[in-house]
Amino acid sequence: MNLILVSHNDYIDGDCVLLSDRRFTHIRQVHRASIAQQLRVGLINGNSGTGEIIAIDDHSVTLKLNLTTPAITPLPLTLLLALPRPKMLKRILQCIASLGVKDIYLINSYKVEKSFWSSPVLSAASIEQQLLLGLEQSGDTLLPKVHIKKRFKPFIEDELPGIAENCLKLIAHPYQATPCPSNLSQATILAIGPEGGFIDYEVQRLLEQGFQAISLGQRILRVETALPVAIGKLFKL
Amino acid sequence: MNLILVSHNDYIDGDCVLLSDRRFTHIRQVHRASIAQQLRVGLINGNSGTGEIIAIDDHSVTLKLNLTTPAITPLPLTLLLALPRPKMLKRILQCIASLGVKDIYLINSYKVEKSFWSSPVLSAASIEQQLLLGLEQSGDTLLPKVHIKKRFKPFIEDELPGIAENCLKLIAHPYQATPCPSNLSQATILAIGPEGGFIDYEVQRLLEQGFQAISLGQRILRVETALPVAIGKLFKL
Repeated sequence: MNLILVSHNDYIDGDCVLLSDRRFTHIRQVHRASIAQQLRVGLINGNSGTGEIIAIDDHSVTLKLNLTTPAITPLPLTLLLALPRPKMLKRILQCIASLGVKDIYLINSYKVEKSFWSSPVLSAASIEQQLLLGLEQSGDTLLPKVHIKKRFKPFIEDELPGIAENCLKLIAHPYQATPCPSNLSQATILAIGPEGGFIDYEVQRLLEQGFQAISLGQRILRVETALPVAIGKLFKL
Repeated sequence: MNLILVSHNDYIDGDCVLLSDRRFTHIRQVHRASIAQQLRVGLINGNSGTGEIIAIDDHSVTLKLNLTTPAITPLPLTLLLALPRPKMLKRILQCIASLGVKDIYLINSYKVEKSFWSSPVLSAASIEQQLLLGLEQSGDTLLPKVHIKKRFKPFIEDELPGIAENCLKLIAHPYQATPCPSNLSQATILAIGPEGGFIDYEVQRLLEQGFQAISLGQRILRVETALPVAIGKLFKL
């Protein structure tokens, strides 16, 4: 937890927040914090800055906030991600939140197991928890938006054209691939398939929408590795 | 397991191998393989190609190999990695093996907890197991070498100059950093600190050895994320 994230609900008056959950536990046990100590704090979807401890007891901590630093600039990336295995999804959401991705579409694909769609990991609360862990790690405050799209064809045909408009459209797919561009600063949308890859039908639908295949090299990478590799390659960080 | 890795010990005669361990279980349960089926097989530190099933029963499978494809070109990267937390280390070894890194020095740092050095994850057998999982994932055959260096100063002063000779020397460190180079094909050595970073003393010792600090952006990344991001950014894949 490199940044303690607070929400509007945590405010008790003016610029003070009262924390009594895992953030309190962290402040007490990891920071071993005491009165007058300054901690790094951020407001979800707002500024970041410092929080000075003005009261602490066995159950809660009160911080006086001074949040004047604007949020870190988001990565100009929208991610289309074939729904990963639930255990992977948790880790991947943390990872992409920590990297500054702000728009994530979890989409269906032939090779996504149907049972994944009924995992509790897809609940709004669970998704938010993973995203917050990613932001706390990276020191960022802007909460990514995760969109769940269970039907491939209607999503690709009806919604994707609007979402991908004016974006550079890329699909990580090793066949008929062009070299991966780098140091992009333009708006980009990147599609990443499930383990085993998108099937030909799915690749065709994306190519028809103007996507171009890019290769991440000869090695077959896990999604959780391919994502940071692709982001490192594509963007100025 | 995108590649079934065999060793010289698995050969029973000429170009045939007999497998009865987890590779057999995988072939039977995941591939649901039967006589005459062709599987992707690689010889550790050798070629890859196909293995045709010539016998299979409840306990073992015999494959006739035809291995004519040379190993994938290694990444020209030597990694100096402050020893991560044991649970992380397992995942990180898989990740970097899958990315084609072939030389990894696990080094000490002030912020590495002493207990990490006595973890069973550091046994040769455990390290090899994680590396093999990474190679099986990526389809590579060349086993990385992992060197364990428990004393920071003697390693940096006595061994590092020889190891880093003729290499581009980089340290992922956000202060006084130059922009991260990209599309490298030259031999490179990259130092990555522990969670919380190298301390000033350690950074100074590396700078004295000719290392230059590079930044991976404003966000603080976990080592397991920073590594693939850096590799994606630095190299042609």
